[in-house]
Amino acid sequence: MGAEDLPLTPDFNTYAMHPHIEAVGCDDGTVEIRWDDGHEGRFHFLWLRDTCPCPHCINPVTREQILDISTVAADVHPVSVDLDGVGVLSVMWSDSNHVSRYHPGWLRAHCYSNGEQSAHHAPHIITWEASFAAQMPTFDGPGVLEDDDTLYEWLIALREFGLTRLESVPTEALMIERVAARIGTVRETNFGRLFDVCSKPDPDSNAYTPLELLPHTDLPTRELQPGIQMLHCLTNTARGGKSVMVDGFYLADVLRREYPEHFEVLTRVPLGYHNRAKTTDYRWRAPMLSLDATGQITEVRPGMLLRAPLDVPFEEVESVYAALQTFYRLIRDDVYRAVFPIKSGDVLAFDNRRVLHGREAYNPTSGERHLKGCYLDRDELLSRIRVLQRKLSVRDCMPGWG
Amino acid sequence: MGAEDLPLTPDFNTYAMHPHIEAVGCDDGTVEIRWDDGHEGRFHFLWLRDTCPCPHCINPVTREQILDISTVAADVHPVSVDLDGVGVLSVMWSDSNHVSRYHPGWLRAHCYSNGEQSAHHAPHIITWEASFAAQMPTFDGPGVLEDDDTLYEWLIALREFGLTRLESVPTEALMIERVAARIGTVRETNFGRLFDVCSKPDPDSNAYTPLELLPHTDLPTRELQPGIQMLHCLTNTARGGKSVMVDGFYLADVLRREYPEHFEVLTRVPLGYHNRAKTTDYRWRAPMLSLDATGQITEVRPGMLLRAPLDVPFEEVESVYAALQTFYRLIRDDVYRAVFPIKSGDVLAFDNRRVLHGREAYNPTSGERHLKGCYLDRDELLSRIRVLQRKLSVRDCMPGWG
Repeated sequence: MGAEDLPLTPDFNTYAMHPHIEAVGCDDGTVEIRWDDGHEGRFHFLWLRDTCPCPHCINPVTREQILDISTVAADVHPVSVDLDGVGVLSVMWSDSNHVSRYHPGWLRAHCYSNGEQSAHHAPHIITWEASFAAQMPTFDGPGVLEDDDTLYEWLIALREFGLTRLESVPTEALMIERVAARIGTVRETNFGRLFDVCSKPDPDSNAYTPLELLPHTDLPTRELQPGIQMLHCLTNTARGGKSVMVDGFYLADVLRREYPEHFEVLTRVPLGYHNRAKTTDYRWRAPMLSLDATGQITEVRPGMLLRAPLDVPFEEVESVYAALQTFYRLIRDDVYRAVFPIKSGDVLAFDNRRVLHGREAYNPTSGERHLKGCYLDRDELLSRIRVLQRKLSVRDCMPGWG
Repeated sequence: MGAEDLPLTPDFNTYAMHPHIEAVGCDDGTVEIRWDDGHEGRFHFLWLRDTCPCPHCINPVTREQILDISTVAADVHPVSVDLDGVGVLSVMWSDSNHVSRYHPGWLRAHCYSNGEQSAHHAPHIITWEASFAAQMPTFDGPGVLEDDDTLYEWLIALREFGLTRLESVPTEALMIERVAARIGTVRETNFGRLFDVCSKPDPDSNAYTPLELLPHTDLPTRELQPGIQMLHCLTNTARGGKSVMVDGFYLADVLRREYPEHFEVLTRVPLGYHNRAKTTDYRWRAPMLSLDATGQITEVRPGMLLRAPLDVPFEEVESVYAALQTFYRLIRDDVYRAVFPIKSGDVLAFDNRRVLHGREAYNPTSGERHLKGCYLDRDELLSRIRVLQRKLSVRDCMPGWG
C-alpha cells in the first residue's frame, strides 16, 4: 500500500506520517488513539463523522463540506475501528455502513484532548518602545517583490512587531499596489484604493495638511479598522515631518499594570467614533481597547481626532475622562515614541489596529512631501503567511488560528 | 444677533433651535440646562470643555478635533455661564479664560442625562419567515439609480428587513457596480471586486457548480463577514435554481426561545471557520451567533460549508454538536425559508451577516444562469442612510449610532 492510498484531508495542507498511531479503541462515546510518542487522543464519534474526508462528505475539488452534520443521528457510532498497514485509521459507521479513513498526521494536528486544544492559538507578539526606531526590522523592497523567502520574513516580522520598513522600493506612483499584491486584496475605502498623503486644498482630514499629527489609528469610525497600513514615500524633501510611531499594545500593557482602574474602563465602556465629512457619515461604537478571550490585547482605537461627543451613562463620565486623559498622556510620552525620518523609497508597513502612527509638523514651503498609502485587512496578512508556510514547508505552523 | 452668529457644530448636521434653553446654572461639577419643553440636562465640565466647537478646538474645515483633552486640567470649571439672545450657551473656562459657545439644538441632541443616553442607539429591525417571499420590499432599479428618495426608501428597507429586491436593473455586466456606488465603497475580496455566480470548471467554491446550495452567509472565514451582498441576475433560463433565503435573526430568536441551552452555547463558544483553496488560507474563530451589549442579535455565522474541524474544549464537544445540529435543522426547515425565482434584471440585496442565502439545484443543460455579485460593508449602508437623512432633512434621526 503506497502514499497514493492515503486519504484526502479536508484542506490543502500536508501532514507528516510520524508519529505513528500505535493503537485504537472505543470508550465512552469516543475513539481513543495512542501515538508512538506517547500522546493519547480522544475523538468524539460525531467529531469523526463530521470530519470524514471521503468524496461523498467533502467535495474533492472545492474541499467544501457536502455532509450536513444535522442529518446524522446524534448517536452515530462505529461498527468497526481499524488501523491499516500505513497507519491510516478506518471507521465503519452505524449510518448505512459509511466508511471514513483518516490521515494520522491530520488527526494528530487536530487533536483537541489532553491539553492539545489551547495550543493551536495565539501568534507570538513582541512589544516595543522608543528605542525601536533604531531596531526596526528593515527589508529590501525588490527582494520582497521577487523572493518568497524574503516576503515570508517580512510578513512574520510585521505580525510580530506590528511595524516594519522596506527600503529601495521604486518610487513609481502605483508601486505600493504591487507591494500590497504580495500580501493580498487591498481594502478600498472612501479615500480610494490608494490614497495620497500630502497637503491639499479643502482637506477632509488633518492628514492632508502640514500640521503635526498625533499618533493615531486610521478609520476608527469603521466597525473593523483596517488591519494593515502601508505608506510609500515617493518624495520627501520638506523640513520636519519625522514619523512618530507608538506601539498601542505596549501602552495598553502599561495602563493595565500601572492604572488598572483606567484599563478596566477602557476595555469595558463603548465609546463613539464619528468621521466628519460632507459626503460620508461613518460611526462606530467600541471600547478603546479590545481583548480576546484570554485577556490578550487585540486592538486599540484611540481616535483622538474622531471621538464623538461622549455618550456613556451619566455616572461613568468622570471615570471615562480620567481613563482617556491618562491614556492620551501615555501616547504623548516620549518614552514610548519611536521617531525617525522617512526617506524616498521607504515603505512603512504597520498594524493599524495596534500601532499608532503620526508625524511631526513639516514646512510645506521647504520642499515636497508625498506619501502613497493603502490598507489591507489582517485576514490577508495571515492568509498569505499560511500559504507561504505551506509552500516553504515551514514546520509547526498548522493548524493555528493566529 | 442673527443665525450667522450661531456657533459651528463639531459635525455637518443641522440642528433645530427649538426647544429653547430656559435656564442654566452650575451644580456639583456639571452645567445644568433646562429646556422650555421641561427636559433638564446635566453636562459635566470636562464634557463641555471637550466638545468646544471653536476654531481653536476643532479644525473648521475638517471638523476634526485639535484640542487634546489630556492637556486640559481635570478640574477645569466655568468662570461664567451665560445664555445669549438667540439661546446660545456661552461658557468662559478657568483655563486661560477660553470661551466656548454651544448650539442649543446640538446640546439637546447630545444630552446624556436623565434617560437620554440609551435612546440614541439601535435601529428598528423586522424579522420574517417563509411568507416573506411574497412580501419582499421591491423597488424600481432605475428609480434607485436616479432618485434619492427612492434610494432612501430602499436602504431603510434593507436595514430593517435585511432582504430587498430591485427590478428592471439593466442587464449590463458592470451595472451592479453602479448600484453599489449609490451606497458606497465596494468591498473587494479574493474573488474580485465583482464576482460571477455560474458554473465554472475547477471551481474553488460550491457556488460555482450547479449543485444545491444550503442557505449560508458568505466569507465566514473573515474577521468581518461582508455586511451587504448584492446579486444581479444577468440571465436565468435554466430550470430550477430558485433562491432560498432565511432570516438568521429570526432563527436565532427561535433558538433563544425554544432551545435556550443551545442558544447559550452558540453565543459563547468560538468555532473555527476555514476556507479551502490553493492560493488563500483564511481562518477565523467566533461564536456562531453574536449579540450586542443589550442582548440583541447582531450577526450569524453558520458556515455550514466552511466550518473547520471543531476545536473547542473536550468537555464542550457534545453540547456544541447538539446546538449545531439543532440550528442547522432550523435552517433546513421550510417554515423559515423564503423561496422565490430570480429573473433577469433583478438585484437581490441582503445583509450577509443576517440573511442566509442559498438556491435549489439547477439544470445547467436546460439554459443559462448567470449572476454578478459584489459586497459592501454595513458601514457603507449606514453612512449613506445618514448622509441622505441630512440631505432629505429626515427628522429624529440624529445622532444615533444605528
